Amino acid sequence: MTNPIINTIEQRSTTSLYDASRDISNAQVTELARLATLAPSAFNLQNWRLVAVRSADAKARLRAVAWDQPKITDAAVTYIVCGVIAEHSVMPDRLAPVVAAGIMPQEMVPGWTGAAKSLYFEQPQRARDEAVRSATFSAMTLVLAATSLGLGSTPMIGFDPQGVSREFGLAENEVPALLLAVGYATSENWPQKPRRPLSEVLEVV
Amino acid sequence: MTNPIINTIEQRSTTSLYDASRDISNAQVTELARLATLAPSAFNLQNWRLVAVRSADAKARLRAVAWDQPKITDAAVTYIVCGVIAEHSVMPDRLAPVVAAGIMPQEMVPGWTGAAKSLYFEQPQRARDEAVRSATFSAMTLVLAATSLGLGSTPMIGFDPQGVSREFGLAENEVPALLLAVGYATSENWPQKPRRPLSEVLEVV
Repeated sequence: MTNPIINTIEQRSTTSLYDASRDISNAQVTELARLATLAPSAFNLQNWRLVAVRSADAKARLRAVAWDQPKITDAAVTYIVCGVIAEHSVMPDRLAPVVAAGIMPQEMVPGWTGAAKSLYFEQPQRARDEAVRSATFSAMTLVLAATSLGLGSTPMIGFDPQGVSREFGLAENEVPALLLAVGYATSENWPQKPRRPLSEVLEVV
Repeated sequence: MTNPIINTIEQRSTTSLYDASRDISNAQVTELARLATLAPSAFNLQNWRLVAVRSADAKARLRAVAWDQPKITDAAVTYIVCGVIAEHSVMPDRLAPVVAAGIMPQEMVPGWTGAAKSLYFEQPQRARDEAVRSATFSAMTLVLAATSLGLGSTPMIGFDPQGVSREFGLAENEVPALLLAVGYATSENWPQKPRRPLSEVLEVV
């Protein structure tokens, strides 16, 4: 039953300590972001944006609004993974390339747009949930891609969202859903933590 | 640069049409759930629960509160992926196995519990965000595990959350974050849809 994906899922663990002397290339920073955006999103909304914090100055500014966590300055990069508040008016724009590629018939676009409107229009909690969901789909994809390349990764929620938005000029409709550090882990990190028994978390009906 | 994980991420696409004649085993339903729970969660909260909808009766009840989507009755299983509203009082319970395994020193438990309290206590939006985030981390992990086993998968948000909660007896603090169908795809499904140019979604600072 084991295969490389399952091995990666089983072996992944969250990195706490990074080797600050080892960088990754700009090409890797970009490639990881590209892979993250291959994650699924509702209606192909792709309502995410990544700010890759790479420079010493930017890392210091991020650390100052993120509980002073050393990971942020030690890791090669920390992505601010933003979800964008879901909104149906972008749908024709997001679906046009799908139509142009011959995948989706043009006649389906109004139906999808209407479905998105029925979910999000004047439904701020649902629109925010969608932002967090899409951002997290992309973040988890990035985590497993990084693991497969021998890199450590750290999803983080210990930060001041207003501070992050201000320091990095996030738009009104962008929710910083999590921070995600990536880089080379030192050998002293913890292994994957034990999980709750499956009987507590799975019900089959 | 390609490796099996990256290939899987690149080749995954959301399934719309399932072969209703092909089932998966109960062991696979359980194994996919186990892999999903190896996803990361804040403070190792593991604030997720999966209801695997397998029986014809349960599928019909779910379809009735999920926009009548045929995927739900055609797919081998649809997981109701729930996030649990994050709450710091469960932390000692969730961390005890980590301490028992010799990974985490007991002295760290109060600090982690306090950090979780500072984030979630009397912060309902943050606690809900954490529910959606944890559920989505586990769902994305399940999607890639399913893909690696040759199975199609479909994250779905088109459903009535109150109806799902009522029909499947979800607790007050459980948010049905998404539905996730899994099964054998037919050959007529769409390929992965084109993505926005990376320049629109990635900023490096």
